[in-house]
Amino acid sequence: MTLTGNLLIGQRAITGTQAAIHAINPATDTPLDPLYAGASAEQVTQACTLAWAAFDAYRETTLEQRAHFLETIAEQIEALGDTLIDRANAETGLPKARLLGERGRTCAQLRTFARVVRAGEWLDVRVDNALPERQPLPRPDLRQRQVALGPVAVFGASNFPLAFSVAGGDSASALAAGCPVVVKAHGAHPGTSELVGQAVARAVKQCGLPEGVFSLLYGAGREVGIALVSDPRIKAVGFTGSRSGGLALCQVAQARPEPIPVYAEMSSINPVFLFDAALQARGEDVAQGFVASLTQGAGQFCTNPGLVIARQGPALQRFIDAASVQVRQAPAQTMLTPGIASAYKAGVGALAGNANAQAAASGLPQQGPNQCQAQLYVTQAEAFLADPALQAEVFGAASLVVACDSDEQVRQVAEHLEGQLTATLHLDDGDLDQARTLLATLERKAGRILVNGWPTGVEVCDAMVHGGPFPATSDARGTSVGTAAILRFLRPVCYQDFPDALLPPALQHANPLQLRRLLDGQREA
Amino acid sequence: MTLTGNLLIGQRAITGTQAAIHAINPATDTPLDPLYAGASAEQVTQACTLAWAAFDAYRETTLEQRAHFLETIAEQIEALGDTLIDRANAETGLPKARLLGERGRTCAQLRTFARVVRAGEWLDVRVDNALPERQPLPRPDLRQRQVALGPVAVFGASNFPLAFSVAGGDSASALAAGCPVVVKAHGAHPGTSELVGQAVARAVKQCGLPEGVFSLLYGAGREVGIALVSDPRIKAVGFTGSRSGGLALCQVAQARPEPIPVYAEMSSINPVFLFDAALQARGEDVAQGFVASLTQGAGQFCTNPGLVIARQGPALQRFIDAASVQVRQAPAQTMLTPGIASAYKAGVGALAGNANAQAAASGLPQQGPNQCQAQLYVTQAEAFLADPALQAEVFGAASLVVACDSDEQVRQVAEHLEGQLTATLHLDDGDLDQARTLLATLERKAGRILVNGWPTGVEVCDAMVHGGPFPATSDARGTSVGTAAILRFLRPVCYQDFPDALLPPALQHANPLQLRRLLDGQREA
Repeated sequence: MTLTGNLLIGQRAITGTQAAIHAINPATDTPLDPLYAGASAEQVTQACTLAWAAFDAYRETTLEQRAHFLETIAEQIEALGDTLIDRANAETGLPKARLLGERGRTCAQLRTFARVVRAGEWLDVRVDNALPERQPLPRPDLRQRQVALGPVAVFGASNFPLAFSVAGGDSASALAAGCPVVVKAHGAHPGTSELVGQAVARAVKQCGLPEGVFSLLYGAGREVGIALVSDPRIKAVGFTGSRSGGLALCQVAQARPEPIPVYAEMSSINPVFLFDAALQARGEDVAQGFVASLTQGAGQFCTNPGLVIARQGPALQRFIDAASVQVRQAPAQTMLTPGIASAYKAGVGALAGNANAQAAASGLPQQGPNQCQAQLYVTQAEAFLADPALQAEVFGAASLVVACDSDEQVRQVAEHLEGQLTATLHLDDGDLDQARTLLATLERKAGRILVNGWPTGVEVCDAMVHGGPFPATSDARGTSVGTAAILRFLRPVCYQDFPDALLPPALQHANPLQLRRLLDGQREA
Repeated sequence: MTLTGNLLIGQRAITGTQAAIHAINPATDTPLDPLYAGASAEQVTQACTLAWAAFDAYRETTLEQRAHFLETIAEQIEALGDTLIDRANAETGLPKARLLGERGRTCAQLRTFARVVRAGEWLDVRVDNALPERQPLPRPDLRQRQVALGPVAVFGASNFPLAFSVAGGDSASALAAGCPVVVKAHGAHPGTSELVGQAVARAVKQCGLPEGVFSLLYGAGREVGIALVSDPRIKAVGFTGSRSGGLALCQVAQARPEPIPVYAEMSSINPVFLFDAALQARGEDVAQGFVASLTQGAGQFCTNPGLVIARQGPALQRFIDAASVQVRQAPAQTMLTPGIASAYKAGVGALAGNANAQAAASGLPQQGPNQCQAQLYVTQAEAFLADPALQAEVFGAASLVVACDSDEQVRQVAEHLEGQLTATLHLDDGDLDQARTLLATLERKAGRILVNGWPTGVEVCDAMVHGGPFPATSDARGTSVGTAAILRFLRPVCYQDFPDALLPPALQHANPLQLRRLLDGQREA
């Protein structure tokens, strides 16, 4: 469990040859050893070549083998103990309690995908038996299963150094699907990445899998990421990060001789709609919940509620007043990186300099470097509709209240929104009719719609959607959290008139995997 | 059932204002009335605006309403009677027997999607019930369903004037998913398109649906298609045609402020692998089946077997000789359009001029304009591996035999292939081990793999995959034929802690649609 600063290319730890990164403790602004030298183009190629060499064998491991591998990764991560939590705390400024919870979530996520792999529903087996007597032409025997797309490039996210990084949701779902993974570590937590990477590499070895199933690369600029996405052996990309970063990868992926899918989770301001009856009855409670969600983790969540929309009037004013009281008591919190902290200041500065946005409240001042001071602003719907800058994401604990003249204006603001990860409704029984008129719009705008809750806190389960229309993600057809994430890394193949001896087990006539197939148009019981 | 030359913008028949197209009878090279004036940019916008206006209502029609609509379209197409068959015959040169079969397939396809819509499995309902007592945090109630992507632009294909045109597979699957459709008619069969378009419009009216559910446009150049794919209200594209056409639409779709998915089925040469034991035992029979598949419909199928790969030797030579005898007896057949006929001649000319391709046999000479004379060429694997031109699709009844030195060279040729719709194996029991070594490669290369059959003839069923890795299609994750085609036009939405009164029926607690949900991790019986 020693940090070496080395790349992991399959089972080999190799020192990079390009410009190095080092982590910075954002709470103290001091650099952390060791240096992580970036991968050369050749080293990127080595990792992809190993992944390619591993692919055909890995994708045909049994469901049990693959599930056991995912569980072994979880065990190996847990075996890292406090070393992992301490390093992640130093690299990210995130409190240890949060990191312990995130480790639990990461390991539970791996075990959830093990359950999904074993259940085998993702194979989506469809069988149409031969109809040799059919007129005018016989029907052949046709069988369909899903197969893995190929090696996947995964980009670690800064804000979930465990749950959406080296062995996070993208890696877990790609590995579950049968895809080898090459991870580009996020530059903000290379030590955490190396520790988890070593854990995954140990699991690969322990499970006797081909070494190319997993590699881990570092890089100071965008070169490593671009080289990775450009490599012809990479067949899909998982990314969580900025809109500019995600769009750049999409362009690289589209410009390849063989374009590939990119699942980039990029930006969202997560509108919250407050309806009249709820505001009247319990506006202060809603305000308290809102500020708790807004300031949680210094607001560094993709689902942070950055926009509040309601009809103006005394009830909304009471909400703003109550929220302002809460914001003013919110302690400043260390952000993940100096870069994120300065981007937050710039975003807040843009709001402060916007004549259409009125400052309502600021949190307690900074006590150290790279801290986030919570901010609440208010604007009018007309200004919001006219000024795209007011819809820009400010990553951190800043939110904007949009006061509307009428229900119709609320609807206009909803329709005006870009694609979102989430949309939230606060309502009482008396608001149901009004809420219903917004639903069709919100279904078109967001991947998840919540009632009387808060969008932060993304459950890892079957029904979760952490995705949404562009620009929330680059591909609204997928989710990056929850078990449906596996579906992103699969494609269908049909086998016609195959002798049983050539069929993969999922499709054999005796159904040895005991799958509930779609058999001649009927789902098996 | 009179042909008017009008666009159908919702329920209105409107004359286009741009350059007109007219069909040409390829058997006589004579133009067919009426003229079809192209849609203006404004008319494209009108169709998209209507589609958008219809979307929210149409996607929430009941499963029964939508299924009935699809069945009504089938009835209305059947009610066109001989008018449709006669016009399609005149416009395409396809024999009436083939067109009668294709009409049957088109209507069966619509009825199959009606069954799929009613069964509701495509909703992929997932329910995770609330766990209020869970520690450290309660779990909310989470419910997921699939919703329609939005209005879809469909481009009719030339080679299936019914089954992959106005009311073909793309339209049927998009309408089944809940997406309004705006069709750009293929310029080769505008009259057939208008007749079918009128049938669909009558079904829309008869079912009381919003008129924007369906529109039909014509255009002489690429402008209408580009305007359609650029329109912000269009959310996905279905296309079957040339690689250049498909890639152009992909570029337009990617360049939009909001990029959208394009399902373009583009090009495939459908390799056929002949193994030794099968060649020895029944090479002449295989040759007969091969030439029948090659020359069927003048070779104008996406799955036409354009490539044959085998180890050289006396058995392969006997196959080539037997196939040559068949090819020499193959009558010339009228192709779909003068453009397709001249592209075929150019493709064959390129083979004839390639020093590495030896002519083995030519079919009977042309008896009329725009006819396809079947062609068989032979090359060596080394030349094939070195010359990308030998992998170019020649749309029509031309095929190239690649003779290999060794099993290893067969594998190299397979690995060298671009993405394909199909790959076919002809084998006997003694070939199983050899075939098994190729399977992993072919799974990576093709959407459908066949044993001892021929790739032409694409069954519309649950297990079909008519798709495959780039450049066979622009998106290997989908199929354009078969019931899984509906999945291309859907995205997931999650509903968190919704009161039952706000939930769509598919997600309500009482499960009124009686769906087999994924409920707390278990599939309902």
